[in-house]
Amino acid sequence: MVAKFEVVERNELKQKPDQDNLSFGIHFTDYMFTMDYSEELGWHNKKIVPYEDIPMSPASQVLHYGQAVFEGLKAYKTAAGAQLFRPNENFKRMNKSCERLEMPQLDVEEAVQALKQLISIEQDWIPTGEGQSLYIRPIMYANEPYLGVRPATSYKFLIILTPVGAYYGKGHLTPIKIFVEDEYVRAVRGGVGFAKAAGNYAASLIAQSRAEKLGYNQVLWLDGVEQSYIEEVGSMNIFFVFGNKLVTPQLNGSILPGITRKSILQLAAHLGYEVEERRIHIDEVVSAAKDGSLTEVFGAGTAVVISPVGEIKYKDEVVTIGSGNTGEVTQKLYDAYTSIQNGTSEDPFRWCLSV
Amino acid sequence: MVAKFEVVERNELKQKPDQDNLSFGIHFTDYMFTMDYSEELGWHNKKIVPYEDIPMSPASQVLHYGQAVFEGLKAYKTAAGAQLFRPNENFKRMNKSCERLEMPQLDVEEAVQALKQLISIEQDWIPTGEGQSLYIRPIMYANEPYLGVRPATSYKFLIILTPVGAYYGKGHLTPIKIFVEDEYVRAVRGGVGFAKAAGNYAASLIAQSRAEKLGYNQVLWLDGVEQSYIEEVGSMNIFFVFGNKLVTPQLNGSILPGITRKSILQLAAHLGYEVEERRIHIDEVVSAAKDGSLTEVFGAGTAVVISPVGEIKYKDEVVTIGSGNTGEVTQKLYDAYTSIQNGTSEDPFRWCLSV
Repeated sequence: MVAKFEVVERNELKQKPDQDNLSFGIHFTDYMFTMDYSEELGWHNKKIVPYEDIPMSPASQVLHYGQAVFEGLKAYKTAAGAQLFRPNENFKRMNKSCERLEMPQLDVEEAVQALKQLISIEQDWIPTGEGQSLYIRPIMYANEPYLGVRPATSYKFLIILTPVGAYYGKGHLTPIKIFVEDEYVRAVRGGVGFAKAAGNYAASLIAQSRAEKLGYNQVLWLDGVEQSYIEEVGSMNIFFVFGNKLVTPQLNGSILPGITRKSILQLAAHLGYEVEERRIHIDEVVSAAKDGSLTEVFGAGTAVVISPVGEIKYKDEVVTIGSGNTGEVTQKLYDAYTSIQNGTSEDPFRWCLSV
Repeated sequence: MVAKFEVVERNELKQKPDQDNLSFGIHFTDYMFTMDYSEELGWHNKKIVPYEDIPMSPASQVLHYGQAVFEGLKAYKTAAGAQLFRPNENFKRMNKSCERLEMPQLDVEEAVQALKQLISIEQDWIPTGEGQSLYIRPIMYANEPYLGVRPATSYKFLIILTPVGAYYGKGHLTPIKIFVEDEYVRAVRGGVGFAKAAGNYAASLIAQSRAEKLGYNQVLWLDGVEQSYIEEVGSMNIFFVFGNKLVTPQLNGSILPGITRKSILQLAAHLGYEVEERRIHIDEVVSAAKDGSLTEVFGAGTAVVISPVGEIKYKDEVVTIGSGNTGEVTQKLYDAYTSIQNGTSEDPFRWCLSV
């Protein structure tokens, strides 16, 4: 690859963390990509610089009015070198988030190019253990020092990198227990639920804390209007398996349009499963779990990839999904999906991009 | 007043802006109050320091997950010296916002003490023209450099100050036109609408932009469930005047519990008006405007104080409120309220606090 963006080198490289004890999102690599936006210049000052603190005005709009969006994706070390998983999709989605929050658009091709150059410089940071990867976090935020409530006129875009361990060691999936939240609401149609807007996550924390106190791993969100239809789980989309059929809530403006969600739908169809996107009532889930027609449930998202659900609590009812263990369909999809990502199997959809 | 917090002096004071041309939220004073929170130490490192940029990690949680809340209040220069308007109410509300966003609580008395000391140092920055004041912006945000989605373990609290001009020169109120938003939704019960959470404001910008393009000054928000009941207008609460009676939407979890709202209700009752908090359907507003029983409408908030509404557009209907000019009740409340704030009349409720 031909280097395109200026690189400001750092004097000394950091010590890399122990690959056997990687936590999520604590260690950051030596470099980051950065660029600035102003109304006069558009995106400018594009370069790769040492990862370090950024001076922030106390009046920066992001701190007051929350104009901030992010993305999450991963780079893998394969036999053929570093590869990225569907990066264009992430930057396209970031543009949709930006549109909703009145923030400037990215040039998707340029953002992918910047990311490739950054990953190429930071290749040695990609951990190589099973299930490990380099997590990529693009963010954009308003940094104009002004307290009027209106879209900011200046922004910063960054790509930062953090090596992450496997959610599940050795591909051994562990089912989680989820709590159906019927008081707090994550998002409503007409709101910003479909965007990876920073504020959505702050608003969700209280429900997650309550679920954990009750012994559950994640929250299952219901719709904001009727508080009856399934939206998503924690920071994942959710899938229900009825025998040979996969069902997931249809995108409605308040659900995050997950790239893992979209990819799993494609992959499942490719593997011969029937797939369906539709509204799903929580009562349907509870009764189908009880009568055994609902055979498996799993969450899907970039960080965790696929996470089986073994138990669901809704109001006073607790239902076990199937045997409570990881189901066959879930395991099969997990294996097929991760082997495409880490380059150990064919990539029939051309999802992976070599760096 | 006895100084309590350490003051780190700056070498040179800034030039103050021209008092005849003050804009909102652009010029900041010489000093700010700051403190840090950690799980081990609680709130610590409390001091008044020069207003300047703060180093921010690119992984600071506020930039990714939006844990950020703010407040807004004002200091006035009166014949008897600087005074604050109900500062305890703001810090109490900030604590409610923090509770919802899983952020740490403030000691209200200590925050007021810090604010008094800061205002006392910055007295010369309080502009003295009619309707002018020193706008006070307390903020709190998560600054832990960590990408896991959970409440942060470290936070920063700041109070910054900006001199602001009168919204309306010489007390001459100018009616605004409002656009009833029936697609985008600001908040829903179970969400964070009652909190001054940063993310709420980013989410609202798109509707405000659309209203402006259509020639309207502000958006009137409807409830998130039925999209039929009045919530609030732009960044103000809203009041409807039916002859001698003031009606405002009741607090329901998605409406901001405005301190101006609460104070206007008290003041109006004191002045002999009947006041009522209840659900108000948009259809009721439109038909009452048409039949003349709705005589006045105004918005109320810290920045603007009181803003008369002359015209409302809902779907294809445009209705004029009363004569379209500032009504008698609106003007009377504005005069009574601002004269308490600037110290030119009695303060029957003991709202003002001398610095």
